[in-house]
Amino acid sequence: MGGALLSETLTEVLIPVAAVVGIAFALIQWFLVSRVKVAPDHSHTPSNNNKNGYTEYLIEEEEGVNDHNVVNKCAEIQNAISEGANSFLFTEYQYMGIFMVCFAILIFLFLGSVEKFSTQSQPCTYNKEVMCKPALANAIFSTISFLLGSLTSIFSGYLGMKIATYANARTTLEARKGVGKAFITAFRSGAVMGFLLAANGLLVLFVAINLFKLYYGDDWEGLFEAITGYGLGGSSMALFGRVGGGIYTKAADVGADLVGKVERNIPEDDPRNPAVIADNVGDNVGDIAGMGSDLFGSYAESSCAALVVASISSFGNSHDLTAMCYPLLISSMGIIVCLITTLFATDVFEIKAVKEIEPALKKQLIISTVLMTIGIAVVSFVALPSSFTIFNFGAQKVVKNWELFFCVSIGLWAGLVIGFVTEYYTSNAYSPVQDVADSCRTGAATNVIFGLALGYKSVIIPIFAIAVSIFVSFSLAAMYGIAVAALGMLSTIATGLAIDAYGPISDNAGGIAEMAGMSHRIRERTDALDAAGNTTAAIGKGFAIGSAALVSLALFGAFVSRAAIQTVDVLTPKVFIGLIVGAMLPYWFSAMTMKSVGSAALKMVEEVRRQFNTIPGLMEGHAKPDYGTCVKISTDASLREMIPPGCLVMLTPLIVGTLFGVETLSGVLAGSLVSGVQVAISASNTGGAWDNAKKYIEAGASEHARSLGPKGSDPHKAAVIGDTIGDPLKDTSGPSLNILIKLMAVESLVFAPFFATHGGLLFKL
Amino acid sequence: MGGALLSETLTEVLIPVAAVVGIAFALIQWFLVSRVKVAPDHSHTPSNNNKNGYTEYLIEEEEGVNDHNVVNKCAEIQNAISEGANSFLFTEYQYMGIFMVCFAILIFLFLGSVEKFSTQSQPCTYNKEVMCKPALANAIFSTISFLLGSLTSIFSGYLGMKIATYANARTTLEARKGVGKAFITAFRSGAVMGFLLAANGLLVLFVAINLFKLYYGDDWEGLFEAITGYGLGGSSMALFGRVGGGIYTKAADVGADLVGKVERNIPEDDPRNPAVIADNVGDNVGDIAGMGSDLFGSYAESSCAALVVASISSFGNSHDLTAMCYPLLISSMGIIVCLITTLFATDVFEIKAVKEIEPALKKQLIISTVLMTIGIAVVSFVALPSSFTIFNFGAQKVVKNWELFFCVSIGLWAGLVIGFVTEYYTSNAYSPVQDVADSCRTGAATNVIFGLALGYKSVIIPIFAIAVSIFVSFSLAAMYGIAVAALGMLSTIATGLAIDAYGPISDNAGGIAEMAGMSHRIRERTDALDAAGNTTAAIGKGFAIGSAALVSLALFGAFVSRAAIQTVDVLTPKVFIGLIVGAMLPYWFSAMTMKSVGSAALKMVEEVRRQFNTIPGLMEGHAKPDYGTCVKISTDASLREMIPPGCLVMLTPLIVGTLFGVETLSGVLAGSLVSGVQVAISASNTGGAWDNAKKYIEAGASEHARSLGPKGSDPHKAAVIGDTIGDPLKDTSGPSLNILIKLMAVESLVFAPFFATHGGLLFKL
Repeated sequence: MGGALLSETLTEVLIPVAAVVGIAFALIQWFLVSRVKVAPDHSHTPSNNNKNGYTEYLIEEEEGVNDHNVVNKCAEIQNAISEGANSFLFTEYQYMGIFMVCFAILIFLFLGSVEKFSTQSQPCTYNKEVMCKPALANAIFSTISFLLGSLTSIFSGYLGMKIATYANARTTLEARKGVGKAFITAFRSGAVMGFLLAANGLLVLFVAINLFKLYYGDDWEGLFEAITGYGLGGSSMALFGRVGGGIYTKAADVGADLVGKVERNIPEDDPRNPAVIADNVGDNVGDIAGMGSDLFGSYAESSCAALVVASISSFGNSHDLTAMCYPLLISSMGIIVCLITTLFATDVFEIKAVKEIEPALKKQLIISTVLMTIGIAVVSFVALPSSFTIFNFGAQKVVKNWELFFCVSIGLWAGLVIGFVTEYYTSNAYSPVQDVADSCRTGAATNVIFGLALGYKSVIIPIFAIAVSIFVSFSLAAMYGIAVAALGMLSTIATGLAIDAYGPISDNAGGIAEMAGMSHRIRERTDALDAAGNTTAAIGKGFAIGSAALVSLALFGAFVSRAAIQTVDVLTPKVFIGLIVGAMLPYWFSAMTMKSVGSAALKMVEEVRRQFNTIPGLMEGHAKPDYGTCVKISTDASLREMIPPGCLVMLTPLIVGTLFGVETLSGVLAGSLVSGVQVAISASNTGGAWDNAKKYIEAGASEHARSLGPKGSDPHKAAVIGDTIGDPLKDTSGPSLNILIKLMAVESLVFAPFFATHGGLLFKL
Repeated sequence: MGGALLSETLTEVLIPVAAVVGIAFALIQWFLVSRVKVAPDHSHTPSNNNKNGYTEYLIEEEEGVNDHNVVNKCAEIQNAISEGANSFLFTEYQYMGIFMVCFAILIFLFLGSVEKFSTQSQPCTYNKEVMCKPALANAIFSTISFLLGSLTSIFSGYLGMKIATYANARTTLEARKGVGKAFITAFRSGAVMGFLLAANGLLVLFVAINLFKLYYGDDWEGLFEAITGYGLGGSSMALFGRVGGGIYTKAADVGADLVGKVERNIPEDDPRNPAVIADNVGDNVGDIAGMGSDLFGSYAESSCAALVVASISSFGNSHDLTAMCYPLLISSMGIIVCLITTLFATDVFEIKAVKEIEPALKKQLIISTVLMTIGIAVVSFVALPSSFTIFNFGAQKVVKNWELFFCVSIGLWAGLVIGFVTEYYTSNAYSPVQDVADSCRTGAATNVIFGLALGYKSVIIPIFAIAVSIFVSFSLAAMYGIAVAALGMLSTIATGLAIDAYGPISDNAGGIAEMAGMSHRIRERTDALDAAGNTTAAIGKGFAIGSAALVSLALFGAFVSRAAIQTVDVLTPKVFIGLIVGAMLPYWFSAMTMKSVGSAALKMVEEVRRQFNTIPGLMEGHAKPDYGTCVKISTDASLREMIPPGCLVMLTPLIVGTLFGVETLSGVLAGSLVSGVQVAISASNTGGAWDNAKKYIEAGASEHARSLGPKGSDPHKAAVIGDTIGDPLKDTSGPSLNILIKLMAVESLVFAPFFATHGGLLFKL
């Protein structure tokens, strides 16, 4: 079979180096962003020619650059947002902490009980001739890696929130100088998040594997089984982050819009609206921190899925460390590729006009995909032996290195296809969104009908893209192929996150401009940034969903192998009932989250109305609203409401596995996967389309758009209703569904030893 | 194993007798309805005491009973509706006729080509030692039974439309005498449809089997394989009926509401609205004719699925005719049970007040279910040997007669559970709809969010009910168990259809009352009938979806057996891509149908606006609108728009089976089944809930409802928007999805011999 070109030592060096480079690059970007001052600067240092270093802010000034009042106001608002986000996240972390401890104990008890907490070595699961470490070790190390994954996930989300709240006012201030400057600030900040997250995820995983190896030694099967806890930890925190943050942000957003825009006819983000700070906080805790945790989870899970399959393939059996680390090397290469890609946006091309923003972001996707394809080829040829075997449900399948190259690449390109389709259906530059906007002529009802139809339709091509990637990668390299295809889609995660995080940062920047009373012209610039951000946010969700589908399938496959199920035959009653109930779960989950947003929004509406009615001079702008109460309503509601959907997701695999056994659980996983993907894609695209249809009318950039506007016209009002309905779809229920499908899969995998031994109580009785 | 108590001769007599009794009963009901005169009656015959014969209509008169003008006006409107419906259906039948002929040729060619049109006998598929009739015979007889099924389906829909348009004005006129009289007229008319359809379906199937037997003789395997064409014919006509009728009715309804209620502020069904006749025609062609064809299709398919499995089980192998006819005997018993049940509504209890309507309809469900359980027990014990074997994917499974009793009963009771859950989520007597109504306080957006969440939530219990029935019936008697469970759910179809058809008839009656300018009091009565009708329509859809799920699974199982697939393993790439693409199809299909309704409604809106703007005196009621143009718009749009979704459903199995083979097709069937059920249930319940939330506010029957009203208030306007969005969901895309899932399954079954021989071209290359 032959060995890999890359030596083991070099592998052990290259991975951490790539991670450190990623972190360093993120810190440089942060430093560059930090040079935009939000405190009035009295030093008046002479400018130099450092083109993207922002020191020239005194020479290119366009308007109000030296207006200290504005700067002070921006700083003040930024502080309020940052404090609100901090306080919410820390309260949320207390809940998560309790959950983490309880669930860690549960993992330990369930997995420890497999061999009745015996400390005896036992025959390995797949290779019965070799002795493996005891189940108790698996329990302990799974628990540790669960905790590690949880903490890394929380850290990722927190860092994202930190940089986003750090950058929002800076983006606003830069918007005074032009759309290009503002774009770069927002984009750099997104890059900070993207690189920190990708590099941290890789580094922690790498370190954990090396530390665990001190104990496990040659028992790689046990080692990588324990490592899957890392993915579980990552995704379970992401669940609470997405759901809690999603409810928070949309309760505030919907509540603010319903009273502000619809009843009181004041603009979005008007400082008179008491819910406006809560709304901006929401963007940071939901869209940024939630998304960060989510994609970190996907990344961790796809790596774990690939590693666990590799450990029982020839890589693991022959202890070929370099080949074993193939998933980590792909991620390392991804960091370097994204680094180069980012430079294209920040240093090579320069944005000068509003209409260049979307193409610039699109170019990022294309450049990173093309470069990464080369990168994958390089890694595949240097890190893999030319031929090897992959575990395939009991048998070993012979695979060539170029076949793995195809697996990873097809995932990567499928991601690009999904990204572009999402863009087509959610950007107001194309006919689908324009049709939706046009349907506002006949009122909110047709707007909603057309929007729902658009969301349903937008599912078609992504599903075919996912199906083709699954078919190809599955045929070439079984479950390992799927896992690395998922990894391929996520390999450009740093760029993906950068353009994704860019959206909420711009949204916040617009909010701050409005609240600080900046000019209409500046608000127009931030609006343009924001419209592009809506599309990129939808693209980011598309990636998240697509990769979640692949990841879950890979985890599902690993689970089936681990649970020693021979076939998952739809035509056995146990499996079929799992399938149909699994397909129902996304609906149950969405019902919970949407209802939560609805109820929390109703409370918010009442509070905002109360303040408008009881605070004298509020509408006239003489009195300040009580922002704090609104922040508190969102916080309380989201923390309370995230528990039932969280329980649904976390408990389903445990209950089904314990009571009905692994066959039914397989059905549930497959059902929730194939149904959840559709619900998630359609929900997030419908929401994105409505949002941009509204923006299309507001911007009035074409003859057609002007015939529907202006703000306040009947079609615009209908569009606002659609936008409001879309909020919980695109930012709460839709994106949480990724986590539902992958979390159930990874949880099943972690608990597989227990289910295989003690599961199916109901049928045993 | 022992024989059945019931002799073969008696079986051959009992089935047609039950069918004839059903037809006779329907005709009696029709006669009773016909005694309500829509032409002014000058004879003044003295009344007698025939309590429900309606001859006493001169002594109980309440208001305007002798106002000949009103009667004339009602007759005129009824004629307009009837003509519109007739003309639409006949145009639709031309399309269907072309399709029928083409598809019949296709069936003949595909199935004939299996053995290259050879006229030689061949070894049977399952029992290779016995010789069966040639594949060419299968091609010919499948084509014939397809045509028979198609014609019966068309006939069922047409008859339903005929009686509904016959009864609507009569219900209006009876409403002058009291709500009880009107209820009985509407209900009797529904019963005419229910009984004619159930009895006809049974009779045609019975006659076809007996005629086919003349050729097939002892080759029951071939005989019942050919009979499955009957189900395919039934469902393919139902597809066009549902989709075409659904688009028709909702384009008219949405168009009429958007201009009439929202823009012009005129009441629903106001004669000044040019789309009002089209709207009423739509109720008859969509809700009545479409539903009739749909349920006939389910009935035909579940019978065929049971028969085809039975033919290769011990019933077929030992040529036990009585046991073989078990499905038909269950249906015969169903007709008798429903007959008794109907008498409870028409002759035993009498409706005196509005609030008694819903309980009366609910009682119908309960009575029929309880009686039918006894009926099933009787049939199971007299028609089945105490022990026999059922074909179960290659093996023969031993089953006892009481086990089949459980299979049928669990389907029956699952239907009842689904019915009640649907009622709970769509009737405004319970908190879910009231919550949705309450959310209208904060506008249309929260109404839509709450409504969507309600629909998602309403999926949970029905899915568990379906899952439990599948598990029990599958475990007890394999695929045969599922097929008879579906038959159990449909055994009370006559009652189900009666209470279902009652809805649109009452809706039309209300429309006629409004258009004929009858008093507010009469309109209130018809509104109350209609509100109950919305709920029963939702219950009917619940039954249709639940039975479709079971039927499709049974057909799917039969297909897998016929195509000689060993397992449908989710973890093979071929199957999994089928599964995920299959799960996407309901979305694609819904996108098409919803967009179609949207576009057609936009056209309707423009026409209605044009008429209001250009016809002088229309708003003032001096001039008559041009109803004909609106009827034409709906007709043209629905016929044109029904083709793409029709092609999607009809071509998918053919393309997938031919190119990708039977494994991928199995995946597609399973995927579309588990995903489609959820979309269908949530769509129809969401729509039903919005409709009744609006009615709740309009009726103002409670303190809470009055606080949201009256008509024209902001919450009411928000409720109208929700109602309008719900229209295509509940009456077009939702109910068409049943047909999607079962039609693809039955089509796959019919074409299974071809796919098994020539399918999977792409992988063969």
